[in-house]
Amino acid sequence: MLIGLFAHLSTFIFVTRAEEQILKDFGKRLRSIRLRKNFTQEKLAFTIGMEISQISRIERGIINTSLLNIIKIAETLEVLPGELFGERT
Amino acid sequence: MLIGLFAHLSTFIFVTRAEEQILKDFGKRLRSIRLRKNFTQEKLAFTIGMEISQISRIERGIINTSLLNIIKIAETLEVLPGELFGERT
Repeated sequence: MLIGLFAHLSTFIFVTRAEEQILKDFGKRLRSIRLRKNFTQEKLAFTIGMEISQISRIERGIINTSLLNIIKIAETLEVLPGELFGERT
Repeated sequence: MLIGLFAHLSTFIFVTRAEEQILKDFGKRLRSIRLRKNFTQEKLAFTIGMEISQISRIERGIINTSLLNIIKIAETLEVLPGELFGERT
């Protein structure tokens, strides 16, 4: 069902060094949580319905992923989204 | 500085009813936190460097905003990102 939602297709943008570091830190946390939960990138991608390459790019900090993807990843790994942001939960 | 980052321009996509509700719930929480912190949409948008219309679309649940925007919003409103996701912090 088409819902008139603004969402996104990918292209290149400028990001600051600080933003680049934020994305890299987020990606590192995702990777460590994923490994702790014994998920391969493939299993996580398949479960969510994402491309493996997308999970890989998020973990390498070269994707500014979306709200919905963050929630799907957190739900699949059975953690609160806050943990992906580095919060003690 | 151009960093070869995949990020996003806006277009329409299909979202499920459940995803639509997730975005609406996120938007409601953002609005209530923003009001609690005595920020207008204009003040929040100006502080972050976003368009007021973008804040408005996030609050109405018709934008699937990005990881970097979530962090900028949380930092500006001085809350943990988890609170925007409905977590007790």
